[in-house]
Amino acid sequence: MPARDLTIGFDADDTLWHNENVFADMHARFGALLAHHHDAATVERELLATELRNLEIYGYGVKSFTLSAIETAIHLSSGQISAAEVQHLIDLGRGMLVHPVELLDGVAETLAGLTAAGAHRLLVITKGDLRDQQSKLDRSGLAGHFKEVEIVAEKDASAYAAILRRHGIAPQNFLMVGNSMKSDILPVLALGGAAAHVPYPLMWLHEQTAEVPPAGGRYFELKSLHDLPAVVARWAAG
Amino acid sequence: MPARDLTIGFDADDTLWHNENVFADMHARFGALLAHHHDAATVERELLATELRNLEIYGYGVKSFTLSAIETAIHLSSGQISAAEVQHLIDLGRGMLVHPVELLDGVAETLAGLTAAGAHRLLVITKGDLRDQQSKLDRSGLAGHFKEVEIVAEKDASAYAAILRRHGIAPQNFLMVGNSMKSDILPVLALGGAAAHVPYPLMWLHEQTAEVPPAGGRYFELKSLHDLPAVVARWAAG
Repeated sequence: MPARDLTIGFDADDTLWHNENVFADMHARFGALLAHHHDAATVERELLATELRNLEIYGYGVKSFTLSAIETAIHLSSGQISAAEVQHLIDLGRGMLVHPVELLDGVAETLAGLTAAGAHRLLVITKGDLRDQQSKLDRSGLAGHFKEVEIVAEKDASAYAAILRRHGIAPQNFLMVGNSMKSDILPVLALGGAAAHVPYPLMWLHEQTAEVPPAGGRYFELKSLHDLPAVVARWAAG
Repeated sequence: MPARDLTIGFDADDTLWHNENVFADMHARFGALLAHHHDAATVERELLATELRNLEIYGYGVKSFTLSAIETAIHLSSGQISAAEVQHLIDLGRGMLVHPVELLDGVAETLAGLTAAGAHRLLVITKGDLRDQQSKLDRSGLAGHFKEVEIVAEKDASAYAAILRRHGIAPQNFLMVGNSMKSDILPVLALGGAAAHVPYPLMWLHEQTAEVPPAGGRYFELKSLHDLPAVVARWAAG
């Protein structure tokens, strides 16, 4: 048991379970639907542009994606898309919402080990759609490992600061684990916390960043969650 | 300053600001759009049925409503609805998301008074869409009155219990204010808290309940938020 009262926050999508592959599959089906109107690259570019334009009022998640996909399909088909095709997009979106939750490598064992050790408080900190994220956590079988689940509209420094304040956590006693430099790593390092980056093979363009985090012993690179216990031990001893 | 450390929770939609009138307006426009296919009562019944069927996977909020409206329109038009009409529904939904926030009678003065008195901690506890609810709170100008904002997927007894536990609030020191018997009043009374009901003229069928809350001095009926300070004083003295 370490002397410090340490908390580990986990991102959910593409950190605990696969998510971006489900979106990538949806993008491929969407491209196929519009293949007789435009080439795949144009479809992909227009869909991303619509998503980003709608982000401020729709926020993240599958319902936002579905609405943006319908709007893009109407636009790219010059209003020729049929009601049946719109219904097909709605059905694809619904399929994403009930898609089985597939855990990433090392997640189940690592969380079980950390929970059994009982030395640290574990949180989920995710953005997206409230209902969808809670449903995925329920279906993941992982919920019992976490003391709290925080679902926020945007994962920036002020959102993390509010969470740490609410739970009475000092930044130097907080380690965030996630796949997104932009959402999981940089804002936590900026607050004085520690962060462990676990890259996921796919990443939504909106989440990509070229920035390199500052050094200083508070930043860790993991290959998978299998590497986390060693990093936690190093961090806890630091 | 009362001896007890008291917390007052406020529902948001149709308690702090108008909401159901925006949905009612959208329903009327939706009925008009499908008037050449079906009478208004049929449209209304089918739309509600679609919303309830989708509630478990979509949750509450405007994006869920928009997707259910599109699906209902496709179904009721036997697939004849045009892409332009689908786009019209998407535009109506977007309009709801950026609709000006119109405060209910007595809200601004009552919250200002309670905040100035400084005797009680004020929370917002609302369900719905994360991004939409936060945006409405920001636009309302009321955010500064509240210590915390809790946006949950469903307002049932277990959700309230989790909130009270997280903030270290004993149920007997908690008063919930809201327009929905089902979501604001009954679950809080069941936990041993107090609840003040402020009816709103319109109510979504899904929120309606015929149940009468148990007596016992923990239930109050308000005409508007103007009545709240007197009720709080009575409750705090109790």
